[in-house]
Formats: sequence, C-alpha cells, structure tokens
Amino acid sequence: MNDSAVLLITCPDQKGLVAAVSGELYRFGANIIHADQHQDHDAGLFFMRVEWALGSESKQAFDIQAFSEAFAPIAKRYNMDSQLHVSAIRPRVAVFVSQHLHCFADLLHRHQMGELECDIALAISNHTDGEALAKFYGIPFHHVPLAAANKAEGEARQFGLLEAAGVELIVLARYMQILSPEFVRRYPSGVINVHHSFLPAFIGARPYHAAHKRGVKLIGATSHYVTEELDDGPIIEQDVARVSHRDQVEDLIAKGRDLERVVLSRAVKWHLDRRILRYGNKTVIFD
Amino acid sequence: MNDSAVLLITCPDQKGLVAAVSGELYRFGANIIHADQHQDHDAGLFFMRVEWALGSESKQAFDIQAFSEAFAPIAKRYNMDSQLHVSAIRPRVAVFVSQHLHCFADLLHRHQMGELECDIALAISNHTDGEALAKFYGIPFHHVPLAAANKAEGEARQFGLLEAAGVELIVLARYMQILSPEFVRRYPSGVINVHHSFLPAFIGARPYHAAHKRGVKLIGATSHYVTEELDDGPIIEQDVARVSHRDQVEDLIAKGRDLERVVLSRAVKWHLDRRILRYGNKTVIFD
Amino acid sequence: MNDSAVLLITCPDQKGLVAAVSGELYRFGANIIHADQHQDHDAGLFFMRVEWALGSESKQAFDIQAFSEAFAPIAKRYNMDSQLHVSAIRPRVAVFVSQHLHCFADLLHRHQMGELECDIALAISNHTDGEALAKFYGIPFHHVPLAAANKAEGEARQFGLLEAAGVELIVLARYMQILSPEFVRRYPSGVINVHHSFLPAFIGARPYHAAHKRGVKLIGATSHYVTEELDDGPIIEQDVARVSHRDQVEDLIAKGRDLERVVLSRAVKWHLDRRILRYGNKTVIFD
Amino acid sequence: MNDSAVLLITCPDQKGLVAAVSGELYRFGANIIHADQHQDHDAGLFFMRVEWALGSESKQAFDIQAFSEAFAPIAKRYNMDSQLHVSAIRPRVAVFVSQHLHCFADLLHRHQMGELECDIALAISNHTDGEALAKFYGIPFHHVPLAAANKAEGEARQFGLLEAAGVELIVLARYMQILSPEFVRRYPSGVINVHHSFLPAFIGARPYHAAHKRGVKLIGATSHYVTEELDDGPIIEQDVARVSHRDQVEDLIAKGRDLERVVLSRAVKWHLDRRILRYGNKTVIFD
Repeated sequence: MNDSAVLLITCPDQKGLVAAVSGELYRFGANIIHADQHQDHDAGLFFMRVEWALGSESKQAFDIQAFSEAFAPIAKRYNMDSQLHVSAIRPRVAVFVSQHLHCFADLLHRHQMGELECDIALAISNHTDGEALAKFYGIPFHHVPLAAANKAEGEARQFGLLEAAGVELIVLARYMQILSPEFVRRYPSGVINVHHSFLPAFIGARPYHAAHKRGVKLIGATSHYVTEELDDGPIIEQDVARVSHRDQVEDLIAKGRDLERVVLSRAVKWHLDRRILRYGNKTVIFD
Repeated sequence: MNDSAVLLITCPDQKGLVAAVSGELYRFGANIIHADQHQDHDAGLFFMRVEWALGSESKQAFDIQAFSEAFAPIAKRYNMDSQLHVSAIRPRVAVFVSQHLHCFADLLHRHQMGELECDIALAISNHTDGEALAKFYGIPFHHVPLAAANKAEGEARQFGLLEAAGVELIVLARYMQILSPEFVRRYPSGVINVHHSFLPAFIGARPYHAAHKRGVKLIGATSHYVTEELDDGPIIEQDVARVSHRDQVEDLIAKGRDLERVVLSRAVKWHLDRRILRYGNKTVIFD
Repeated sequence: MNDSAVLLITCPDQKGLVAAVSGELYRFGANIIHADQHQDHDAGLFFMRVEWALGSESKQAFDIQAFSEAFAPIAKRYNMDSQLHVSAIRPRVAVFVSQHLHCFADLLHRHQMGELECDIALAISNHTDGEALAKFYGIPFHHVPLAAANKAEGEARQFGLLEAAGVELIVLARYMQILSPEFVRRYPSGVINVHHSFLPAFIGARPYHAAHKRGVKLIGATSHYVTEELDDGPIIEQDVARVSHRDQVEDLIAKGRDLERVVLSRAVKWHLDRRILRYGNKTVIFD
Repeated sequence: MNDSAVLLITCPDQKGLVAAVSGELYRFGANIIHADQHQDHDAGLFFMRVEWALGSESKQAFDIQAFSEAFAPIAKRYNMDSQLHVSAIRPRVAVFVSQHLHCFADLLHRHQMGELECDIALAISNHTDGEALAKFYGIPFHHVPLAAANKAEGEARQFGLLEAAGVELIVLARYMQILSPEFVRRYPSGVINVHHSFLPAFIGARPYHAAHKRGVKLIGATSHYVTEELDDGPIIEQDVARVSHRDQVEDLIAKGRDLERVVLSRAVKWHLDRRILRYGNKTVIFD
C-alpha cells in the first residue's frame, strides 16, 4: 500500500460541493485514486470520500499540511464535518474478547497477514481463555475481570489501558459484557460489535436458540457501531447462511460463528480503510 | 413426469419405523424413486417422505388401493399421521391477489410452463387489476370486493367459489387482506402467504420502509403457511438481497418483488410436490 | 422519476478531471443527484457518471443545450469519450426471442410495471411462440424465420425493422440464433445477451447438461454485451444458485431459468439507467 | 457427541434395499438418528447413509461386532460397497501446507474448537512458514522440501510419515505442489484439495488474475477430492463472492481466501462426518 490520504466529508447537501473539494485538491496537484459521493435526499445530507496519493518519497510530495490549512475555510463555509486521514498514521486498535475465541483468532490472523491496516495495541478480556492466542500473535493481553459488583472499577482500569495505548478503535470480538453508557460516550464512533443475529430479528441473548425455535430458513449476523441503546447502533454489515430442519441449535451456532467472523472482519477493515460514514443510526459504506 | 405416489408420515419417534414402511412397500413391489427421513429429537417426532413409481401403464402396475388398505393398520400401530398422494390427481389451487401483480404473473407463467404440478382452478381478487392477466392465461377470475363492513359476506362468497372448484390449496399472491380466523380454520394446512420481509424482523405493514429507516444491509422475504396468529405461521422459505446506502425505499420495494416471487413460487412448488411436513410452527422440507 | 440528465465519461486518467466536470456543472447550476468515478490504474483510464436534475417544469430549468455546447471543448481537451442522456428521451428497445419465453415474459411484465425506463418498440422472433405474450402486453411482434440458407436475408429484414423503429438497444431474451458479425458491428454497444451458464465455465450449448455431468455444486447465468467473439463479450452481471446431487438436468434447467431472468433484467435496467461503461472486454457498473 | 455408528452404502439400484438394511438394523435394536438415501437413475446406483446410537455406556449397548458380521451376507447379496464407521475411532488426518497459511490456521482453530471430529496427526510442508502455527496448536510439523529433482524422494519421506502416523485423510490446505500419480493411487479416496477458483472456470495457476482479466462479477472457490487428472476430481463444495470493477487482483485474492477457508473446512467436516459418497467424478453429500 502506497502512502495516501483520505478525506471524509458529511455536510448539508448544496450545490457546488464536489466542485469546491475537487477544485482545491486539483490546485494542490492531488493524484486522486478513488472518489465517491452520496446524497441522502430525505435527510438533505451530502457524503464524500476522496483518496489521493501522497507520494511522500518522490519530489512531487503532496503538501498535506498546507492542504489541511487551505481546506479549513472551505469546510467552514459549507458547514462540513470532515476528517483527514493519512495512511502513515496507523490507527491503534484494542480487541475485547471473552471466552468465544473464533472472531479473536480470525482478526489476529488477518492482522498478521496484512489484511488490516492498523496496529493492534492490546487485547482486553474478562477471561483468560484468549491469552495464549494473543501471546502467539505478539499482542499484549490484559485480564480485566468484571463482576457485577466491580463493573465501574473494571471499566476504569480499561480506560487506563486504552488511553495509555492511544487506542482509537475498540473491536468487541464476542465480548459478552455490556458497556456502560459512559464507556460508549467516551468512544462516540469507535466501538464496533458483532451481534450474533440478523438484526433487528432476535435481539438479545441466545438468538440462535430463538431462531431454531421459530423455524427460520436463514440465520444471520450483524456488525454495528455500539450506541447507548443496546443492539440499535448503526449497522455496518450483515450476512446470512441457509439452515434447514436438519440443523440443531449447535449447528446454527457453528454456522453463526462463520458469519460472525466474516461480518466483523469486514466492518473492521472498512472502518480502518476509512470507508464508513455514520449518520443517525445508519451508515454510508463507500466500496 | 411419470405416474408416482408419495407417502408422507409424521409420528412419535420409535424403533422400526423405516423397516415397517419400507418392508411393506417392498412386499408390494414398489420401485422407490426417493426416500427421506428426519427425526426431531427434542420433539420426539419422526418424519418420512417416500416416493415410488406407479407404472400404471405397464403390466406390473403398483396396486395403490391394496397398499393403502394394507398400510392402514401399520399407520394405526405406530400412531402415524399419514397422507398418500398420487400424481394423477392434480391438486386444485386458488390464487388470491390484490393490486400488486408480480407474484400473480409469475405463478401463472410458471404454471403455463409446467413448473407447477397443479390445476389453477380460479383466481379471486378484491380488485380488478389482475383480471386481464388471468384471462390471458385462461384462468377464471372472480372479483370479490371486501369492504370492512361486508367482510363476512365477501368471505362467504369466497367459500362458495372455493368449494365449487374443489380447491385444496390457496395461494395468497400479495393478497392485501387479512383472512378471518374462520377462513384459516377451514383450510388448516392449505393457505400459503408471502410476507414481504425477513420474518421475524419487520413484522407488519410497510416493512421496506422500516428496513430503510433501520439502515439494514440485507432485505428479505418469507413464504409461510397462514395461521390464526398473523405472520407467525410455519416458515417455508426465506431469501435475502443485499442493499446499500444508495437504495431508496422504492429500490428496496423493487428488490423485494424479486424476492417475493422466488420465495412464494418455491413454497408453492414444494407444497405441490408433497415435500413439506408441518408441525407446531415449523416445517420439514424434504429436498 | 423526475426529469434528469446523465453524463458518462471515459478518458485517459489525468489530474483535474473531476474538478473540470464538476466545476462546469456548478457553473450551470446543476443540482447533482448522483456522482461516481472510477480509475483503472492498469489501463490508465478514468470513468465518471454524474446525474443531475433538469427541473424542466420549474423556472430554474437547467439549460441542457447550452451545457452540451459548453462541455464540448472540455471533452476535447481531456480526450473524453462522453455521452449525454436526458430522461425525457426514452431509449427504444427491441427484444429478440425464440421458443423459451421465461425471460421474454419477465421483461414484458417488468416493463409494464414501470421497472424499465424505455419503450419496447418491437419483438422479433424466429418462432411464433412468443406472439400471444407480445400481443397481451401490446408489443408489436414480428416473425422472421431464419433457416441456415436464408440467414442474411432474415437479418436484412431484421435491420429494416430495427431501423424503422429507431431501436438503440437489442435484448436477446434467450434468442437461440448466433448474430452475424455484420449485425454485431451495426450495434457496437447495443446488444445484450443472457448466457445460460456461469461464464467462462460451460461455454457453448447445453451448459446445464455439462454442469450436471461435471457434478458442480453451483450453477450460474451471465448477462453480457455481444461481441463478434461468441460468449466472450463484456460481462454485465452473474448470479448463481446452489444445486445438489438430488438435482437432475431438468432441475438445473428450471433453476437456471430463474437465474437467467434475474441477470438479464438487471443488465437491461442498468443499461437503460446509463450505469454501464464498457471498455475492452470489461464493464464498469456504477450502482 | 454421543457414541454412534454410520453405515455408508453404494450399490446397484434394486428393490428392497431400504427394507433389507432397515430390517437388519431393527433386528439389532438400532436407535436410528439420521437416515438418507439417494438414487442416481441414469447411473442405476443407490446410495444410503444411516447413523444410529451405540449407547456403549448403557445396558442396551448396540453390538456393533455382531451387526457387522450379520450384515456381511446382506452386503454381498446386493453387491454393496459399504463402509461401517464408529465415532469412537477418530480418523487420523494430515494437513499439507505451503506458504499461504489462511486455510491451515482456519483448520487448526476449528479443530481446537471441536468442530472437526478427528485427530490431526501431523502437518507436512515444503516450507517452514507454518511451523509456528502448528507448534502453537500442538501439531507435529514436518518440513519436507520438494525440489523438482528430489520429488520422488520427498514423497517417499511423506509416505513414511503418513504411514507411521496411521493417516487416513490428507487435506491439502493450499499445498502448492502437484501430487504424483503414485501418491494419488495410494490414497484413493483420501485427499481433499481446495482449488482457488470456481471450477471448471479458470483451471490452473493464477486463477484470480485470469478472473480479473476476464472481468467476471463473481469469483469462486472449490473443494474436491484429488484424482490423477489435475483439477478434475469430484467436487465437494463450491462457493462464490461478488466482485466489482473496483476490485483489483489483490482484492480478488483476499476475497478468495475467505472462500477457500469456507469451502475447504466444509469439505473436511463432511468427510469426517461420513456424509460424502464418491462415484465417478461426482459426490453425493448427505446433509
């Protein structure tokens, strides 16, 4: 992956937005790699993602600092909510896990293979099951027990670890604890969860048991951003698998594991590639 | 399709069931084409479907009458709920439709092409939109208006038409009226509906609007048997289609039409091929 | 659907393209509805699709004529291959069909429901099987027999019909004749075919028999533009269905019909919505 | 998983087969858990899989030895090719891997989680990349270099390792070497491979490059038994993923890795669960 920058924009829809952004990038000599826009006409919102080469090794390096300063008044004029990311600054990520390790193992393996553009700074768990895996992949592992009585205390310890590690994104890889509202508020767009169900069906615990009882012919899994309202955050990705009368609850759970791995890893990758824009309880995913 | 018979069995699970059924078929010289069994261990139930050639044109024609009589005591001994169908007796079907004609057109075309082993005896609608299509395919069309005030009267007229036509299966091809409990009781295993949603998510009216509002990444459709409890009947088939932030409600509706056609036509075909066994609010589908 | 215009651009990739196009549109006060770009870095090509409202009923109607003239020098400067379409001018389409009518019936029904933004000017067939369907949907039907000996003569008659009807797009809806090279050259980007197979597997006739013989677990269908090289034109859409050892050749054919309908109708819709850009033997599909 | 036995039968189709098998099982008091049959009418073959509880801990333990002896004359009479497996004897498996470790890591993790009913006796590789993973999961790892010049010698060493370990099934988890005909003959139904393509399209090396060049809209992967004819063995499982013009070759490769993991692990699981019957270059998969 060569050096590149990504600009993400959300703002009220109005004429001239693309012209303003692309004109400024052209003035700075940007070599655009990808660009995508979207309008939500009902919400009156405009979304844009543009990615360009920085060429930091070459003579014609793009002056990202100067561009950032020049772009500020444009962002202000159009009332833009904008983010500017450069690939050289790799996001620092924490993975939370409990006892089901399939998503955890999958993320660590993908990270090792170079599929995920981030540094996994640490793993945090209320159990010790994941410790050996973390150690194998060279990820610092922290056991933070969380009994009902000491939840606030445990979260305080988590906050300390996350801040010390400079973590921007938290991935709940089948972490079986509900985050406190305070936790969610601290990381307003930075917690991704996998729900082992096709939301909004089978909200809550033991969804595969509920699906089996209902006799569905498809089961699903959903990855989403975490909000204070449980299981109601913006959906990032969903996928399904076919089941039949032959599948018992344990078969549904096994098929579900494959779905959970896939929808969670896609969500994490898209977030890291700066492809996701959140608004309300929805997402725009620029592919 | 050659002449064949299908025996469907549901009974308490116990040893010797397959031996008893297959032994009796062997004694009568049956040439088995397909056989399939299933046990629901939690419910303690056994399900079986066996299909064999009748060879009614040949000298060694299978004596279905004699077999039926010989099988009765076996069915009684094992407390079986059994059905015996022969392909020569084609089920008579009624299709109910309102103003959305895509499922209706699809079923009539498939029927004309020979995909559905039945006679479509009549079409009934609370509107006249479907009349031209029915006429084109040579299906008698009956317009039975159903205002809130005359619902019982309208249903009485429907019962008359259905009985006169000897109808066994009723297909609700986007029929936008709720059947009365009396109607459902009259056809205890003979009404198939398509719900334009991935049940149990988005139960009720305007599911595509609800799905769009929730920002889901997949939409679905479900075909099911109709029970007195709305949208809670045994699910026969489900399918999904991928959607993105670019899809407006009307796009979801258009993609949904394709799903509805597919899940409804599969359900009707499987029912006609005697592949479905209902129990509780579930189905066994022998493929 | 409101009045709108679509501009499609293919050109050598270079800096400033988006700025130039969006700047000009802004100068004319365009209210952009959708915009999408793509770069093929290997081929060094840039692709763009932009759609904006014309508001022809309002006071601020977009002056499409003036824009077209103002854009010509920009197109020239950047060596663009560009097309400008307005929704008020509906494409005129011819559907070719032989004896398998499922795709034909599907397209006519979708057209009647308003899913396809075009006028189906006529249907042409080397058989008469489709005549009743065409008549029912009010589409002029022409029977043009094509024996091996009179192929050139038959095509000459087809050309006459197509030109008289002002046809821009030809849809081969399971038309079982191979077009002559001359035919293909006359409609260089205007013939869409459905191949009843997952190209490039099972090229040629009787692909479902070949798939059954090979014991595949998935079958597919492909829609593509027709080029002089048979079955090698740019792929527009593909889809698959799962099959098992239980599926006989006739089951594969039936499942294949459902796939063919879906992939052909999507291709036609995307072409009519001006979402497809061809280059080499590939397509860019802006969704 | 409780103690159980599986009987797999392939034989010429004839009357009375199910009655003979189920009658004998009944005579021995078998408590049948699953049973499934299939006829290939073209090939004139009958296939059956029946699974029953052994209850070896209880007083009414099924006498598998006596049944095996009693069944022999039945198998002979009907000219059956039959296999009798008991769950207590876990198959011993060897995994072959080269440098791409995603399938290897996936299988080892699934095995550790108890998804695969086998003992992974050893891993063999022509590289050392997989050694750390094997060690982490406690699997003996053998590095057997295979240069063109010493292929026979290397295979001889492999045979020694496989025989010493009592291996029944060999899984090629992206093993980038072609097995010699002698190797294939030694393990006539015991080598499963994953082909990183949707067979029979893109046979051979670098299929994702070929798929990208062709502009396909779906890519696939295939798991199959290995035969002497390369890439032409009986297909066990296939799956596909959607791709677009935005996907570069490296994106196809990444999506392909996810497909490869899924189709290979399903094939291995089904083989271990004794759900697969091979015949000719096809498979029957009892689900």
